[in-house]
Amino acid sequence: MVFETLAIRKEGAALFAEIAAPPMSLLGPELVRDLVSLIQQAEADHSTSVLVFKSADPDYFISHVDVTRIKEIREATAKLEGEASLGLLFRHLSASRLVTIAQIEGRVRGVGSEFVLACDMRFAARESASFGQFEPAFGVIPGAGAAQHLARLMGRARALEVMLSAEDYDADLAERYGWINRALPANTLSEFVRSLAHRIASFPATGHVDVKNRVNAIALAPAEEFRRESELFGEGVRNPDFQSQITAAMKRGFQTRDAEMTLARMLDSAADTQI
Amino acid sequence: MVFETLAIRKEGAALFAEIAAPPMSLLGPELVRDLVSLIQQAEADHSTSVLVFKSADPDYFISHVDVTRIKEIREATAKLEGEASLGLLFRHLSASRLVTIAQIEGRVRGVGSEFVLACDMRFAARESASFGQFEPAFGVIPGAGAAQHLARLMGRARALEVMLSAEDYDADLAERYGWINRALPANTLSEFVRSLAHRIASFPATGHVDVKNRVNAIALAPAEEFRRESELFGEGVRNPDFQSQITAAMKRGFQTRDAEMTLARMLDSAADTQI
Amino acid sequence: MVFETLAIRKEGAALFAEIAAPPMSLLGPELVRDLVSLIQQAEADHSTSVLVFKSADPDYFISHVDVTRIKEIREATAKLEGEASLGLLFRHLSASRLVTIAQIEGRVRGVGSEFVLACDMRFAARESASFGQFEPAFGVIPGAGAAQHLARLMGRARALEVMLSAEDYDADLAERYGWINRALPANTLSEFVRSLAHRIASFPATGHVDVKNRVNAIALAPAEEFRRESELFGEGVRNPDFQSQITAAMKRGFQTRDAEMTLARMLDSAADTQI
Repeated sequence: MVFETLAIRKEGAALFAEIAAPPMSLLGPELVRDLVSLIQQAEADHSTSVLVFKSADPDYFISHVDVTRIKEIREATAKLEGEASLGLLFRHLSASRLVTIAQIEGRVRGVGSEFVLACDMRFAARESASFGQFEPAFGVIPGAGAAQHLARLMGRARALEVMLSAEDYDADLAERYGWINRALPANTLSEFVRSLAHRIASFPATGHVDVKNRVNAIALAPAEEFRRESELFGEGVRNPDFQSQITAAMKRGFQTRDAEMTLARMLDSAADTQI
Repeated sequence: MVFETLAIRKEGAALFAEIAAPPMSLLGPELVRDLVSLIQQAEADHSTSVLVFKSADPDYFISHVDVTRIKEIREATAKLEGEASLGLLFRHLSASRLVTIAQIEGRVRGVGSEFVLACDMRFAARESASFGQFEPAFGVIPGAGAAQHLARLMGRARALEVMLSAEDYDADLAERYGWINRALPANTLSEFVRSLAHRIASFPATGHVDVKNRVNAIALAPAEEFRRESELFGEGVRNPDFQSQITAAMKRGFQTRDAEMTLARMLDSAADTQI
Repeated sequence: MVFETLAIRKEGAALFAEIAAPPMSLLGPELVRDLVSLIQQAEADHSTSVLVFKSADPDYFISHVDVTRIKEIREATAKLEGEASLGLLFRHLSASRLVTIAQIEGRVRGVGSEFVLACDMRFAARESASFGQFEPAFGVIPGAGAAQHLARLMGRARALEVMLSAEDYDADLAERYGWINRALPANTLSEFVRSLAHRIASFPATGHVDVKNRVNAIALAPAEEFRRESELFGEGVRNPDFQSQITAAMKRGFQTRDAEMTLARMLDSAADTQI
């Protein structure tokens, strides 16, 4: 398996995929194409039962969608489920026979957060991981299922807070809110996840499938709910107000590596301007 | 906006309502009337998008319903949704386009807890806030939606514990159980909430509405469930046993400021008498 | 009330049942028969409203089902609800008018975890309690409702982690995940639970019933879901792979008191062998 934006290592039944999409790990069409291809190949290979995602960039796991390349991303997305919805692409992963684990260092925002929410488990480095679901700062709902996952994981009040505030949340708070399974010391994270992946991979795959099916029947939203949020997001981004806000944000550094190190504060200053 | 029991301050698109209902911030007909009127006016004013509630009394946010004035309260309640159910009145707030935040110092019990549960978010002073859903101590289910909110926020076991024990819960435990978003140091609470309110108010209102609608579709109970609990509560309070228990409790100080500082302990001694 | 595996103490309206099933508190046919009989007698006795379960063995609350006696257990189980499903037997307890509290010291794994999950509340000794839902290590889904309870209590990602990892979880982590209400210092646990049981028992039983009914309507899975997981588990255990894995595990000490003190590590070494 050779990809443009993913480095793959196989250890027994566990596959480790490292995202490498410089300069800031945006979700662009290349990464979507590679994810689609990786999922298809891993599902077809019955010697693989566990799939781990991590990032080569210590500051960014997946920053967010590349807003300048939405059209290409939609085309690449449609390759897996036949629909141009990242929410449905990610939901495919949640419903897969593969057990998926996100090993998170650095920033995970927007569609990056929705990607890790679609994984079966997520563990984050206490010192460096940071989470944001900031789309409502631009007047739109997250498009790839965040509301579906967050409302079920953390309840109504915290899900509303997280999205409406568009704030950054550190790993400890993300753990207290149920956004992630656990925050762990950065220097133990990699070994913890590797050991867990091997442990799960060593158990019979029939158990994985039954457990995932039964838990998904309770706690994974139906496809139509993801589709609906894709549509609402699509309507939002076609709004001229959204376009002018993104343009203004890009002037302040949105979608640049340095400025997004403190994205929530950048959105602050946008607010200051508007007041 | 001038009210008998609410002091209003407007800052940009954020409205701050301070409850002032001495001597102990009971929910009586005056406060209900003022809340109905405030909600109607704030919803009609499209320059307002965020509504913050706090209390002028550092010891009581809302203590509980004034049990001596149920008939008047029901009449005042029916003014908003056409039904004499506080649960439906509060649910109106949950479903509103307005984003609501409860800033909690002091005691929040019974219908006070149900009011803050209906708000979109709630932050509490670690040192002073205290939470109780004590109606089952008198043999009745909470009437304004507590079971609906608590079962969804904290799961079956903790929701049962909270209601069946009729205990007081401090802010840290309330946070661990998901009753509130977060417990914060008292001396930072006000500035935290003010800053959050302004931040949310600075973002486009279209995002608020979409996010609230989608999260409510998952995590806010349907109106008929609130209506049903209103009815069950109504049946309970008409039970002569309930009436005699309230009478006995009032002899021990129920519905007085001093005795309710430690209400859960007062209910203890009632239990002792019964054993 | 005299039982082979339960010692009963009645204090007012609270009944305390101590499990005594040496050598390691396995759930065998005797304990099932006694539980059925205790539930029937306690429900028939309207002077009892609260039922507390604890264990006489400080190291094991209920270790798991006795895998060598499945047929007898199924026969004993069918006595309560007419179906040979422990999930339905336990669900009877969740739906009962009795308020049930689990006071947990020592290990609670497999069907033991499912038993405490069916109780209305569970409090555990911080120093000694340990939780595991390890059935997927043998390729099968838990058979008595764990997926139903865990997915609702702790959300999709943590429920998947707990079952797929087959790990042991200490009381503090179990509290953070919502598996239990609270972890408490061992030397305060017994008095805390006793006091809570008496407090709840002192309040009118009408409140218990209304609160349980309303919360169960939201947060307790329907009987058919428990039935379905019973069936899936039954299919799994008839698989020859399951049988040979259990046989191999028994050679490593599975279902012996000493070896199961660190069961999760024993499953590790099984994994090591398979890799």
